[in-house]
Formats: sequence, structure tokens, C-alpha cells
Amino acid sequence: MGAYTKFPLPFPPLLQYHSNSVPMKKYKILISYDGTDYCGWQIQPNGLSIQECIQTALEKILGSKTTIYGAGRTDAGVHAMGQMAHFSTPINISANAIIKGLNGLIPQDIRILYAEESEPDFHARFSAQEKTYLYRVHTTPVQLPFERRFALHYTYPIDLKKLENALHYFIGTHNFLSFTNENTEGPAHVNPIRTLYELALTPTPQGFTLLFRGDGFLYKMVRNITGTLLDIARGKIPVDAPLAIFASKDRRRAMATAPPHGLTLQSIKY
Amino acid sequence: MGAYTKFPLPFPPLLQYHSNSVPMKKYKILISYDGTDYCGWQIQPNGLSIQECIQTALEKILGSKTTIYGAGRTDAGVHAMGQMAHFSTPINISANAIIKGLNGLIPQDIRILYAEESEPDFHARFSAQEKTYLYRVHTTPVQLPFERRFALHYTYPIDLKKLENALHYFIGTHNFLSFTNENTEGPAHVNPIRTLYELALTPTPQGFTLLFRGDGFLYKMVRNITGTLLDIARGKIPVDAPLAIFASKDRRRAMATAPPHGLTLQSIKY
Repeated sequence: MGAYTKFPLPFPPLLQYHSNSVPMKKYKILISYDGTDYCGWQIQPNGLSIQECIQTALEKILGSKTTIYGAGRTDAGVHAMGQMAHFSTPINISANAIIKGLNGLIPQDIRILYAEESEPDFHARFSAQEKTYLYRVHTTPVQLPFERRFALHYTYPIDLKKLENALHYFIGTHNFLSFTNENTEGPAHVNPIRTLYELALTPTPQGFTLLFRGDGFLYKMVRNITGTLLDIARGKIPVDAPLAIFASKDRRRAMATAPPHGLTLQSIKY
Repeated sequence: MGAYTKFPLPFPPLLQYHSNSVPMKKYKILISYDGTDYCGWQIQPNGLSIQECIQTALEKILGSKTTIYGAGRTDAGVHAMGQMAHFSTPINISANAIIKGLNGLIPQDIRILYAEESEPDFHARFSAQEKTYLYRVHTTPVQLPFERRFALHYTYPIDLKKLENALHYFIGTHNFLSFTNENTEGPAHVNPIRTLYELALTPTPQGFTLLFRGDGFLYKMVRNITGTLLDIARGKIPVDAPLAIFASKDRRRAMATAPPHGLTLQSIKY
């Protein structure tokens, strides 16, 4: 409400401190970013985050302190094709002014694709029904420089048939505790059960992609599953290794976490 | 021949100063680069060039002064999918050692895709029969951040039909003097006649591409033709404007030069 304090108040002072009395509007914004140069989605004390870039710009536009809530807290170096976020404000502003205003203030590697006023009970994170992530792997001897920020260059000899044969261990409803990392903030301690609707391997001219579609993902779950699948593909562990890792329910059994730059949050379904 | 001087000479000293007597081997290398952070292919006094990066690394590997000759002198910000270059050296080295050695020393945004020993009379520039360039344009209201380095974001309303109808003015053999820029080094002063075998418009999900295939290109010719075609597409000049521009044989009639980052040297045919 900082914006109001600069001007003569058109209403009794008490009203502005009584949040229930100020009509708030809620907006959702669809965001795409190249996460290479950021410490992740979430605001951190050390490092520049996507959230901070957008929030700082939003506060300049609205002239008041505003918090934005993102759907997926992507890690440092992870990208987004369609990240969703929401914020509430008492300021009257059009969706178009939000898009143009934000894109004029935030860096070129973050773009607001779309904005609209949302239902009052919409929450970018808690209203999400389904999330889709894509992990890109290049297996050519030399990686072309154009996609180096968005795909892992993996040069071990691999057997894609083995990787394909291991996918079914992950699809469906499982306790994914073995495939998450310690994160005191995450909900894994409460409920590590997640449902993976789809885990699809698709060959590409330069390697392959793994598409993950599920009702939700634990901290580093996609990258830990990818790391395990890569170890299976190169023959470091057997195809049925996921069975024992799942059974252990022990995070220390998780294989190497695949690097962040191959991962993109593709879309969120509400 | 600097490498030899550090060791006892196995042959009479005179021999090493008589270049005809030292057996030289010639190699060609295929190079891909993201030109965003470079001042272009060619070595410049102010700025880091692709050529300098590769040549410096090559001299470390070969232990002797070496010059590399590129096929196309791409401008600052222009990219290459398949740039060709050659060099000669008295040092015995395998093609594989050249690829691995160079890729280990040069920045990640430049990659050596391939190397092989070439015929003694091969010249990356003068032996080239055909070059192909691709110009990428994005016309969506907001440009996705992933390809922002490799495609022009063009937000004027355009009529692609007009652009398509103007392509035929450029295809074939013409005096392209009106579509080059002043460049004291270029061959345009001697012979500005070039043949464009193909100029193809292809719609893409985010806009369109223009593919140029010809026997050779004058300085900034691709970007000047693209700039003219964009002006036609947005209705700034009529579809038949190229007729008068060609007829003028006057560089000052050339339209705005399209920005470099949309352009990629795709391949060279020998």
C-alpha cells in the first residue's frame, strides 16, 4: 500500500491498514526463462533469482510491496517454458499493462508470455493438477554450441534399450522418498507419495529427451530419476536397480543427480 | 617452425629455412559457433574473434605459429552451424587429436565438429562452390528466451504473402552492388555479380526463416536483402521495390541491414 501514502487519501486512514476492506485483485502470469544465470526460481540471500527479478519489477509498476507465488521452485540452472505464478494487488491494472510493463523491466532471459485476472481462490502452486518436465540429453561426440545451455552433453556409450526397459519402474503411484534430496522446506517428510502419469523416452537428432508428467514432484526428483536412468543406460547399474532403490526408502541410495541445465519445466495444468 | 628450434636438429640447418623442403600437411576443420560474444570470424585489433580463439589454441597444440583461413568472414554476432577453415603445418598430428585438442582449449560456444587432412590445393575460401545462410525471424508478441540469441524478434505487423512475392527479384544471377556495404577488403569493387540459387521462405511455429543458397555473397549481402524483404513485408516499400534498387547500382539505396543475431552460416559446399 506504499503507493497510496504519497498521495492525499481518498478514504479514512483506517481503511488502508485493514486489508479485508481493500478490494484485492488476483492475477496469474505465465513465465518462460533461461535459468542459466540465476540461482533458481526462489528468492535467496546469495544470488539473483527469477522470483526476485519479477517481484522487483512488479513493485516498481504497482508502486507497492507485492509477493509473487510460483508453481514450481526450479533449482539453479533449471529452465522454464511455462512457469505459472500469481500475485494479489489492490492496484487496478490491465493484463496487457502487466505483460508489457514487466517485459520492459526484467532481463531478456526472462519473459512474461501471458497474464490474466484469476479467480480469488487460485494459487499457482496449490491449485496445480499436473506438471510436465522435459530433460534433454545430447549424445553426439561434440555438442553443437546452440543448445549447450539447455541439454546435457553425455558422452558415455549408452544402450537406450536398457533405459527404455527401466521406465516402467517409475510410472504410476510410488513412494519416491529414495529419489528426493534432503530439503527441510519440502513436503517430502509429510507425504512422499507421487503419481507419475507419463515418463516417455523420445529419440532426437542429437540424442534423446525424457518427458515427465505427474501430479507433483519432490525436491530434485526429476534429476535423480534421470541420473539413475543414465546409470542404467551406460550399464553402471542393472535395469532392475530401481526396484531395490525404491524398496530401501533411503535417500542415500539415490544415484547421481543429473545436472540442472538439461531440465526444463514445460507446463502446468490447472 | 618454432617447435623445431627447441630440439637438436636432425637435418642440416639450411633445410629448416627453405620452406619448400619441409613437408607440410594441410588440414580442414568444420566449426560451429554461437557468435553472440565475438567480434566476428576475422581477427580484429579491438575484440575477440572466432579465428583468434581457434588459432591461439592451435598454436599451443602445434607449438608453432599457424594461420587458419576461414571460408566465410561472418560479422560480429553472426553464428555458424558449419564454417569451414584450413591450415598448414609441418607437425604430424591426427585429425582426432586436432578435434579433441582444440575443443579442450577453446570456449564452449565454439566447437570443432570435424577435422581431416585435405588435398594440398584445398582452400577453405577459394575452393568453396556454394554457401548456405539461414536468417531466423520470430514474430510472436513475446519472444521465448531460448532462441533469443539466434533469431530476430520482429514485432511490426507483416504480410508474408508480400515477402514471398518479392523473393523472385533476388533469385538468379544479378549485380548485387546495391545490396552490399562499403568494405575496402571485399571483392565487390572487382566483381559484384553473384548467383543466388535459392531464396526460400519457410513458416515456423514462431515466425519464419529465409534460406539463402548461392555461389558467394558480398559483404552484408544476406542481411541487406533480409532488411529489404522485411520492409516489403511490413508495407514500408512496395513489393517491386527491389527492381529500382537493383537498377540504381547504388549502395545508398539499400534498405536497413537486418541485425546480425538472426543470421547463421549453415554450410559450405566444395
